[in-house]
Amino acid sequence: MLTLYYAPGSCALATHIALFDAGAPFETKRVDFGAGEQRRPDYLAVNPKARVPALATEHGVLTETPALLAYVAQRFPAAKLAPIDDPFAFAQVQEFNSYLCSTAHVAHAHLRRGTRWVDAGETDAMEAMKRYVPTSVAKIFELIDSKMLKGPWVLGERYSICDPYLYTLTRWLGDDGVDINSLPKVREHRARMIERDSVKRALAEQDIPA
Amino acid sequence: MLTLYYAPGSCALATHIALFDAGAPFETKRVDFGAGEQRRPDYLAVNPKARVPALATEHGVLTETPALLAYVAQRFPAAKLAPIDDPFAFAQVQEFNSYLCSTAHVAHAHLRRGTRWVDAGETDAMEAMKRYVPTSVAKIFELIDSKMLKGPWVLGERYSICDPYLYTLTRWLGDDGVDINSLPKVREHRARMIERDSVKRALAEQDIPA
Ligand SMILES: N[C@@H](CCC(=O)N[C@@H](CS)C(=O)NCC(=O)O)C(=O)O
Ligand SMILES: N[C@@H](CCC(=O)N[C@@H](CS)C(=O)NCC(=O)O)C(=O)O
Repeated sequence: MLTLYYAPGSCALATHIALFDAGAPFETKRVDFGAGEQRRPDYLAVNPKARVPALATEHGVLTETPALLAYVAQRFPAAKLAPIDDPFAFAQVQEFNSYLCSTAHVAHAHLRRGTRWVDAGETDAMEAMKRYVPTSVAKIFELIDSKMLKGPWVLGERYSICDPYLYTLTRWLGDDGVDINSLPKVREHRARMIERDSVKRALAEQDIPA
Repeated sequence: MLTLYYAPGSCALATHIALFDAGAPFETKRVDFGAGEQRRPDYLAVNPKARVPALATEHGVLTETPALLAYVAQRFPAAKLAPIDDPFAFAQVQEFNSYLCSTAHVAHAHLRRGTRWVDAGETDAMEAMKRYVPTSVAKIFELIDSKMLKGPWVLGERYSICDPYLYTLTRWLGDDGVDINSLPKVREHRARMIERDSVKRALAEQDIPA
């Protein structure tokens, strides 16, 4: 049995959706960020990074969204969530997810997680970071919209583990101050995603809107 | 034939080393950051993100270090650079590399690439970011040293695509203001890496010190 540790609406949503897509047997445990549960000893024993997602498996705990998504695809191959046996095609999947993880997610995180990159006392610097989020996130999503998202799904005709991850970050655009209407392919991708059963189930379980 | 686009001492060093480890046939092209070559139209045609590394293959160009490293391992399986057929073990490889990419590399980038996250006019905020790099990078490397690097190699007895990536970021610690002597396992890992033929060849070709 797999256990996904998540906070509602966080990047853990991507793995949550993928687990439903895969038809995987799993349970979830909610981590309450408001109460600081991610920094409590019992959660640090699960993930010493004090972050979600974490996926407990019978072999041990895994973290990092791109790794979890590839794990779900590889462990449940019948769901065909990634072209695992084709080195080039699989690298394209990882390239997309690595960009979301290292660049898109990180740009967004400058909105509320400034203390990762400046001292907690540097409030002016944190405000400067916040002010720039609409610009940095827009730039990244324009590249996704114009060059990376093939449409209708990220890889083209084939749905994959790239799609729930993109959708998860697209959900944050309003907060980031980016107008999704300036991103036609991303908007269309979002509309297509929210019709999927896997997405509806994950949103319902996390009790969050589309 | 593969072509690796790199800048000396950049994160592209990881893929450069892995290509030698794999015994891959490849050539390299240097991108001159000093001259801003990464932003010129001919390079943007290779990688619209204006970054290195990029790996041109017969099927197209790939970017993102974790994707390139997995590609090298999967394309040259005889070199046994990753446990590709074991979903859990392969996820551990990706977990490690994804953490380097999204967290360790990003913390370091706040030293000189502040304009990714604040407006270019926000010089005070950029100074605040710089001042915090020794703290943020030390925290990340302490986690690597205490919990993630099994030793002697990242995965334990088996050398993998995690090792050249860790070494590449370890090379930056001096710049980051972090004393490698406070990180015994990382220091030992570095010493072991610089004895490898693949590392020596990549450093020589990039014309940079260990
Ligand atoms: N690189 C990690 C990032 C994980 C991450 O930053 N998760 C956020 C939620 S989106 C978190 O746990 N934040 C809690 C905190 O910073 O205290 C991944 O992609 O899984
Ligand atoms: N997530 C990318 C990051 C690539 C990256 O940021 N590369 C740096 C060199 S270490 C770069 O090209 N910088 C040039 C610039 O920012 O203009 C990866 O891991 O490959």
